[in-house]
Amino acid sequence: MSVHVRVITPIISTGLVQASDFEGILDPDDTLDFTELDEGPASVESGYDAALAVPDTIAKIRAAEAEGVDAVVIDCMGDPGLVPGRECVKIPVLGPCQMAMSIASTLGHRYSVLSISRATHASFLRRAREYGVADKYASTRSIDIRVANLRAQSDLRRERLLVAAKAAIEEDGADTLIIGCTQMFGAARQLEQDLAAEGLDIPVIDPVPLTVKLAKTFVEIGLSHSKYAFATPARLRAEERPAPPLTAVGSNG
Amino acid sequence: MSVHVRVITPIISTGLVQASDFEGILDPDDTLDFTELDEGPASVESGYDAALAVPDTIAKIRAAEAEGVDAVVIDCMGDPGLVPGRECVKIPVLGPCQMAMSIASTLGHRYSVLSISRATHASFLRRAREYGVADKYASTRSIDIRVANLRAQSDLRRERLLVAAKAAIEEDGADTLIIGCTQMFGAARQLEQDLAAEGLDIPVIDPVPLTVKLAKTFVEIGLSHSKYAFATPARLRAEERPAPPLTAVGSNG
Amino acid sequence: MSVHVRVITPIISTGLVQASDFEGILDPDDTLDFTELDEGPASVESGYDAALAVPDTIAKIRAAEAEGVDAVVIDCMGDPGLVPGRECVKIPVLGPCQMAMSIASTLGHRYSVLSISRATHASFLRRAREYGVADKYASTRSIDIRVANLRAQSDLRRERLLVAAKAAIEEDGADTLIIGCTQMFGAARQLEQDLAAEGLDIPVIDPVPLTVKLAKTFVEIGLSHSKYAFATPARLRAEERPAPPLTAVGSNG
Amino acid sequence: MSVHVRVITPIISTGLVQASDFEGILDPDDTLDFTELDEGPASVESGYDAALAVPDTIAKIRAAEAEGVDAVVIDCMGDPGLVPGRECVKIPVLGPCQMAMSIASTLGHRYSVLSISRATHASFLRRAREYGVADKYASTRSIDIRVANLRAQSDLRRERLLVAAKAAIEEDGADTLIIGCTQMFGAARQLEQDLAAEGLDIPVIDPVPLTVKLAKTFVEIGLSHSKYAFATPARLRAEERPAPPLTAVGSNG
Amino acid sequence: MSVHVRVITPIISTGLVQASDFEGILDPDDTLDFTELDEGPASVESGYDAALAVPDTIAKIRAAEAEGVDAVVIDCMGDPGLVPGRECVKIPVLGPCQMAMSIASTLGHRYSVLSISRATHASFLRRAREYGVADKYASTRSIDIRVANLRAQSDLRRERLLVAAKAAIEEDGADTLIIGCTQMFGAARQLEQDLAAEGLDIPVIDPVPLTVKLAKTFVEIGLSHSKYAFATPARLRAEERPAPPLTAVGSNG
Amino acid sequence: MSVHVRVITPIISTGLVQASDFEGILDPDDTLDFTELDEGPASVESGYDAALAVPDTIAKIRAAEAEGVDAVVIDCMGDPGLVPGRECVKIPVLGPCQMAMSIASTLGHRYSVLSISRATHASFLRRAREYGVADKYASTRSIDIRVANLRAQSDLRRERLLVAAKAAIEEDGADTLIIGCTQMFGAARQLEQDLAAEGLDIPVIDPVPLTVKLAKTFVEIGLSHSKYAFATPARLRAEERPAPPLTAVGSNG
Repeated sequence: MSVHVRVITPIISTGLVQASDFEGILDPDDTLDFTELDEGPASVESGYDAALAVPDTIAKIRAAEAEGVDAVVIDCMGDPGLVPGRECVKIPVLGPCQMAMSIASTLGHRYSVLSISRATHASFLRRAREYGVADKYASTRSIDIRVANLRAQSDLRRERLLVAAKAAIEEDGADTLIIGCTQMFGAARQLEQDLAAEGLDIPVIDPVPLTVKLAKTFVEIGLSHSKYAFATPARLRAEERPAPPLTAVGSNG
Repeated sequence: MSVHVRVITPIISTGLVQASDFEGILDPDDTLDFTELDEGPASVESGYDAALAVPDTIAKIRAAEAEGVDAVVIDCMGDPGLVPGRECVKIPVLGPCQMAMSIASTLGHRYSVLSISRATHASFLRRAREYGVADKYASTRSIDIRVANLRAQSDLRRERLLVAAKAAIEEDGADTLIIGCTQMFGAARQLEQDLAAEGLDIPVIDPVPLTVKLAKTFVEIGLSHSKYAFATPARLRAEERPAPPLTAVGSNG
Repeated sequence: MSVHVRVITPIISTGLVQASDFEGILDPDDTLDFTELDEGPASVESGYDAALAVPDTIAKIRAAEAEGVDAVVIDCMGDPGLVPGRECVKIPVLGPCQMAMSIASTLGHRYSVLSISRATHASFLRRAREYGVADKYASTRSIDIRVANLRAQSDLRRERLLVAAKAAIEEDGADTLIIGCTQMFGAARQLEQDLAAEGLDIPVIDPVPLTVKLAKTFVEIGLSHSKYAFATPARLRAEERPAPPLTAVGSNG
Repeated sequence: MSVHVRVITPIISTGLVQASDFEGILDPDDTLDFTELDEGPASVESGYDAALAVPDTIAKIRAAEAEGVDAVVIDCMGDPGLVPGRECVKIPVLGPCQMAMSIASTLGHRYSVLSISRATHASFLRRAREYGVADKYASTRSIDIRVANLRAQSDLRRERLLVAAKAAIEEDGADTLIIGCTQMFGAARQLEQDLAAEGLDIPVIDPVPLTVKLAKTFVEIGLSHSKYAFATPARLRAEERPAPPLTAVGSNG
Repeated sequence: MSVHVRVITPIISTGLVQASDFEGILDPDDTLDFTELDEGPASVESGYDAALAVPDTIAKIRAAEAEGVDAVVIDCMGDPGLVPGRECVKIPVLGPCQMAMSIASTLGHRYSVLSISRATHASFLRRAREYGVADKYASTRSIDIRVANLRAQSDLRRERLLVAAKAAIEEDGADTLIIGCTQMFGAARQLEQDLAAEGLDIPVIDPVPLTVKLAKTFVEIGLSHSKYAFATPARLRAEERPAPPLTAVGSNG
Repeated sequence: MSVHVRVITPIISTGLVQASDFEGILDPDDTLDFTELDEGPASVESGYDAALAVPDTIAKIRAAEAEGVDAVVIDCMGDPGLVPGRECVKIPVLGPCQMAMSIASTLGHRYSVLSISRATHASFLRRAREYGVADKYASTRSIDIRVANLRAQSDLRRERLLVAAKAAIEEDGADTLIIGCTQMFGAARQLEQDLAAEGLDIPVIDPVPLTVKLAKTFVEIGLSHSKYAFATPARLRAEERPAPPLTAVGSNG
């Protein structure tokens, strides 16, 4: 069974994200394409950025379903558009923050998120609560590097991730880690190795590849979000259905 | 001290909401004005609707601060734009769902929300968790009437609110109730009386008047949300500040 | 609408609390008076002190309702008499600890209490649980100054509050603070400024002025605690009602 | 090792409680005496009643320690005076509600309380939260009989306890039950048998005998409440210690 | 990348489980084999059964790793041996109950388990707490059919699953369902259809196929449980390592 | 009433545990005997060890009931066999970890466990959650000494326990402590004294003597675990009952 998953990167095109970033995650006979936004922010580093990304993210999710795409992954740890996007479609819509936190909860007893800036700490705690996986949430630690600099400052990034990881493990009790930004390509494996070199055998989740894989799994197995929980908005249901006959007007239902 | 509070109704103008709806909530020497959106949905009955309302709601919140308004109330139980709006400004931004749930938690031991449709149940539970007041959340019960019909079907609304209220009290253990839609004007007092007539002495919160009053209180007392928790987005901070001198370029901080 | 709020300071008169302490909280045409106890402790610094304060506090709450006062505020962070007082009357009875914790929960993601002594730490945690707002409770930190010395040692108080506040923020993750004793007049604004001087933009709640304001708001809006949750004690109900006719004697119900 | 436990029944003498009620709980060479209050309510059926009982209950607890009694049990499901009483003494002070809920948590997965009136429901939930054992709390169900009538109406009591118990089991998921009033002598064993007759193998806790036994156990094993958690009130510590020498006056510590 | 996953069915061979039950879950070039126990129970319908299954399940997990198998799935909703098994090996060991609950938490807001007997209810609640996903746990409902009869009584099973599912949805608030026994082959899809026929659009998780897929995903992506959380037992570490040189004897480490 | 309690030490005999270790816990006319396993590990220092101990522990529990023993205590902080053991018998089966955590919850506001190795930390948190007493769980701290060395290295043990205890109190907020291994005889009293010498008035629970005492109390008072919660396994019920008459075969129930 070949599957078509679409990654929606909820920013306007900046050249930062490339199709090649996602190569090799799925099998050769699967289709994994990605799209960016026509309207939205240049990066998502705050709730404000995320909010501006949502309307066009929803549009891209609806378009994906209309085009026959099998599942959608939102390429941002803020999971922007996850709830409204799910309301609008029946195909699986997955957010990397939710999936990473849920899988982290199965791998150990306490997980921490390693994020780009202190400004995001509160939002990760908020999300853990919203997703019902706060029991195993230990902390968020951050490295204080802007998204735009993550690739250029890769040595600094590596160094600070190790410091943040060790603080999370030693001071906050974490035994499992999540990379808290989808733009830190390759950081998870590197950090696992750096920790192992210090005798710390800790899994580090790279959220997007994991979430893309899970999206494929959901499709293969026939699972999607509960439409009973994420009901189709009334105004979209109206569009789907033919208008009621005139004689029905006036009745109350 | 006279205070200027602005109610932002996060829908495009439909004639449904009138300035007169808010008359008399504040004192004569206060200013209470309201605005609707230029772009957004015609009503908020889903997460999808709420998401479409957010960008212009944020713009209206920023405009309010720029105009010297003292505090803003978002006139919708979905609290659309609450988090990103708070990031963008320093003046208090209040959501009626958060304030109603928090005040309900102080009035009794378990509160229920009386909502318009089953589709909203999940979102109220999600919000109670996000706001940290889930310990006293009992349930959401709904009356299954579309927003557009709430005024026309006021008898049906009254009848169904009573049924829903009694179910919340008797089956879910609620002792305090919240009207779960900001468009049910007058419903709270009516329901309190209908319950009292059956011997049930239960406070019913009408969220918007309460929240407007609390906004004024916050202003008078000098309180606002924590900017440490809702940090100003980096891209807005950049706008605020003059560019750094050239000599600083290249340093990493 | 002019409102009559009474502050009940649950200690015997020591000269420490003055009517002038509450000046200016409400509007000129409102009435804000205060009373102390005839019987009780000289200060409330333990659960023992609080317990001794409760009986006369309840009496003062009942007297207030009988005199036509609109709402009562208990002037102590132990909220002594809150539950039994609410059972005895229908007018709003507010405790500054409950209201401060509930409002703090709306302003940020984690709040800490700054208290006078380590002996009170456990009681703040216990209260946060009881009030259903423990999800956002970060910690209590204390300054180790006896109540009787708070005014005389105001420089020490200021210095230690800043140290405690920074520990709460940096080590416990607080983004919102509550002054944990009602006798630290003026401390909240001072601490906010001292924190701002270090770049920490953190709201600090002064519980009594906030609670007095909220009491007025409750009166104006017609809200009070749920009598269904805080039922009138059977022995007081009996007093309220005329004796049943003799023929009813012997029936069981 | 023979132990001296004192039961403090926090009501004035009404003839309702008899020394014989406690016969046979401890061993012949132990001492189990009981005392009622000189000042307080005639029964405890509300938070108001409980509050009025507290000051003399504390006095009786202090007197017990002064007399060399080994441990104290408060004979009321409201646990009145538990926290302040513990602050005042070092000998174990046990409340039957706390002990019954904690032991119930070890016997099954969800426990319910069977109480005298709906007015007490909220207080049991509040207490479960305060004691940190709310995870296994299922519900409170009540039988609507006044304390004064519990002995006279023993058939009605039995019948209604069975109805309440079955509702707790079948509707609320309880597998363990607690008798919610210390004045229902003999009810626990009777209810266990009545449930067994319907095929329901459910332990029913009679709180006072259990708590008296646990008090003895604490004494024998050398356990008491944490004085670090329940610190001796400053004004009582002052009494305990000789005044500091004059030369120390003026130093700040 | 071809992957070798082994399903360990923690019962002795009864002919009930067949290799063909797992056909088609993975790709043709993957290896999915299964093994039963040499010593253990004939079915797992209690904690007792599960306990007896654990020692040989651990042995089979260790053997799998020694043989070069890539990941192991325990084929039982009791997840017997999950914790000790993970301690013993580095390859992923997955339990269908944990994975189904964690994925269910991502698909909706409240999930229920549909189990074979009331005797299992408590253990599902216990497990949800242990796994940190109790926030979204709604209930367990059961169909009262013994494992040995599940295939023979497939019509009864279908009928009762529908009744249980509707009770979970309507009375317990579930929007997502989990089949609570790994021996109900085909039940999930059937139940989804039966619910859809009544207008209820609810995902139903069939735990084993999902868990097998996730095991493959973990292997492909290089994830396994945290060895820092599930540390290798000291007595196995000793086996792994050469004995320390004699000169080290006597030192204390 | 004389009581027969059996301690089951879930390891094979190593000479480490002696009958004399339990002398003096019960009264002279009570019977307190102990047994070790025929098959199992030599010590329990991991989940793996615990799992291997369970089958014979269950057998020993069943044998105890068959022999007329009144109650059983499992002598290991992992509580191995607690759940399946309870399923198999009606007499009380108590685990020292569960009882110590539950009693600790009644003595203070936050408790910590002092354990032998970091490898056990996760399991104590897991157990606190499972037992429903996680609200007051502060932390686990460990001393890094192997079980086999606990007696020989008693000075090191004492020293490290004090360090761990102070860290738990000062950094984790504990006010009550639990010795986290049943092989640290005498450590609790010693540590209480060492803490008292530093002015820290903290109860330290020695789990096994406490649990043995509680087992006796349960017997005297007629309490045991809920058989409704820990239902007898179907295969054991079948053994208890005579086979149904042949005519019943084929009917479905």
